[in-house]
Amino acid sequence: MRLLEETVQKIERLDEEMMEKARERMDNLIKPPKSLGRLEDIAAQLSGITGKLYPVIDQKAIITMAADHGVFEEGISSNPQEVTFAQTLLFQRGLPGVCAISKVSGAEIIAVDIGIKGEIPDDAGVIKRKIKNGTDNMAKGPAMTRAEAVRSIEVGIEMVNQEAKKGVDLLGTGEMGIGNTTPSTAILSVLRNCDPLEITGRGAGVGEGGIEHKAAVIRKAIEMNKTNPADGIDVLAKVGGLEIGGMAGVMLGAAANRIPIVVDGYISTVAALIAASIEPKAKEYFIASHASVEPGARLANELLGIEPMLSMDMCLGEGSGAALAFPIIDAAVSMVKNMATFAEVGMEI
Amino acid sequence: MRLLEETVQKIERLDEEMMEKARERMDNLIKPPKSLGRLEDIAAQLSGITGKLYPVIDQKAIITMAADHGVFEEGISSNPQEVTFAQTLLFQRGLPGVCAISKVSGAEIIAVDIGIKGEIPDDAGVIKRKIKNGTDNMAKGPAMTRAEAVRSIEVGIEMVNQEAKKGVDLLGTGEMGIGNTTPSTAILSVLRNCDPLEITGRGAGVGEGGIEHKAAVIRKAIEMNKTNPADGIDVLAKVGGLEIGGMAGVMLGAAANRIPIVVDGYISTVAALIAASIEPKAKEYFIASHASVEPGARLANELLGIEPMLSMDMCLGEGSGAALAFPIIDAAVSMVKNMATFAEVGMEI
Repeated sequence: MRLLEETVQKIERLDEEMMEKARERMDNLIKPPKSLGRLEDIAAQLSGITGKLYPVIDQKAIITMAADHGVFEEGISSNPQEVTFAQTLLFQRGLPGVCAISKVSGAEIIAVDIGIKGEIPDDAGVIKRKIKNGTDNMAKGPAMTRAEAVRSIEVGIEMVNQEAKKGVDLLGTGEMGIGNTTPSTAILSVLRNCDPLEITGRGAGVGEGGIEHKAAVIRKAIEMNKTNPADGIDVLAKVGGLEIGGMAGVMLGAAANRIPIVVDGYISTVAALIAASIEPKAKEYFIASHASVEPGARLANELLGIEPMLSMDMCLGEGSGAALAFPIIDAAVSMVKNMATFAEVGMEI
Repeated sequence: MRLLEETVQKIERLDEEMMEKARERMDNLIKPPKSLGRLEDIAAQLSGITGKLYPVIDQKAIITMAADHGVFEEGISSNPQEVTFAQTLLFQRGLPGVCAISKVSGAEIIAVDIGIKGEIPDDAGVIKRKIKNGTDNMAKGPAMTRAEAVRSIEVGIEMVNQEAKKGVDLLGTGEMGIGNTTPSTAILSVLRNCDPLEITGRGAGVGEGGIEHKAAVIRKAIEMNKTNPADGIDVLAKVGGLEIGGMAGVMLGAAANRIPIVVDGYISTVAALIAASIEPKAKEYFIASHASVEPGARLANELLGIEPMLSMDMCLGEGSGAALAFPIIDAAVSMVKNMATFAEVGMEI
């Protein structure tokens, strides 16, 4: 708990003065003011985060948290649970989608076992921070204890602190966990106070009972566990997931270290809601990437108040959407660095 | 006219068989089928265009067509007309927005004077293909003759043929021309048969008469010139622009040379409508980039039937949105090349 508390206390507002300077310079670049739209917003945000008029984004990484879910036994997914384990092993070989996409921007992918069922070999290139062998079945009781939920967040923070020491300039979130749209939708239903059926989707493939069954399992879990919507850690513990807690920790850790953090799709956005419920100032460090096709994604983004930039009809997770957004951040940096002002080129307008 | 006719005759449908193969492989990559959404659509399109299961996109270029507009004298823009000339000179120094953004993907920017008012110096690094010193004022008569309109399209085709010989793998469109949202909105109003006021926006800055005056000028130009909506070249000649014709030519030339072409924002999308009206098959080679904030942009995309990928609230032009989309194309290529199938990793699912 101490690391979480210390981290939250370290989170400060963005450097407004530097953002103002960045906006002023951008208004004078050789283009109509604001005509680069959200690219300018990102550049200003980067200036506010880094305190630099010309932010530098060289070293990039995506932290992909992998874990399993006890609620899988309720038949909410059509995929074998073993896929979490098997797929995580493939990160070392650079084969998953997020690895392929991140080659474009040169981002490193860091796979973390925060709660996969089964023993990941030591030589698998996976960072081992297992809290337990998957959550417990939230349809029968809390997914984890409050202490485990806090620990999952702290693992995320520890990962970021480690990367920050190595000098990372930009982070992205990712996850791998068969069944994890189920806890994500449970969290969102609680935070939004809506019936799960309104926002339940197919995830990576829904079980035989279809969306109705999946929503019913979520509804049961919420009712049974008496979650407290005002307490993000309580929601995470009772109907969440270890990788969701891990990602929330990555986001809080990024904010505490003043590192911009690109939020991937649906599950990441739900984790962002947990992070923001613990410390709302963390949101100022978030950059939304893509609008997932999961039906709850739009609602999650609205609740967070951050609009995605990409409409790609994607729903893979792993951090694939964050990876796809990294070159946009590069473009914002390049705009500030490489464009000239009207005054610099001697043009009057 | 002969080059245009020959080019149109060369445009063929995509290689459906190769697209099918690409889709089949992507369905078997280690991810839920279709979970990379439009990234998979782009990869399939690239396979259909290039005839290769593993498309290669190394050499990239954006062709930015620059021209002036006689209708400027009606007070439709708040910017000095000289900006077209001055800004085009800055391309050589890599200072405009499109140059800064394209550094991220390593695309070359080719600036073409297809109708700038005034004499661009020989050593300015601008390709000189001036048809005339800006169009005539469409509020007083046709913007250009039919022969000039055809010539503008042919200049675009010539530019692509030249790049194709050098081995370019991916092209983007761009434009520079103070006042060019006015002819763009005129073209769209004619093709859509709607009142200009419904879709007129501020462009890079509207003149003192505001949007109402700008729309009135467009309405007058359309009525006076008796444009024929069924004849794209007629519409281009009477209420269009030289850079719009040039971009339509780039798109037809790209399709004829089987090169994928990324369409920038509003003005480019209007040029794409002209290209598609000349040869609808050309559309199969188009990739839409970003949704411009210009009010007509959504309508133009709907009419073209191609959805943009990026929502950045941008309206700079120059090809800046196309440049921002290039890394997405790179990501599609990397997905196909670097991800493995379930069978390849020995996973059964």
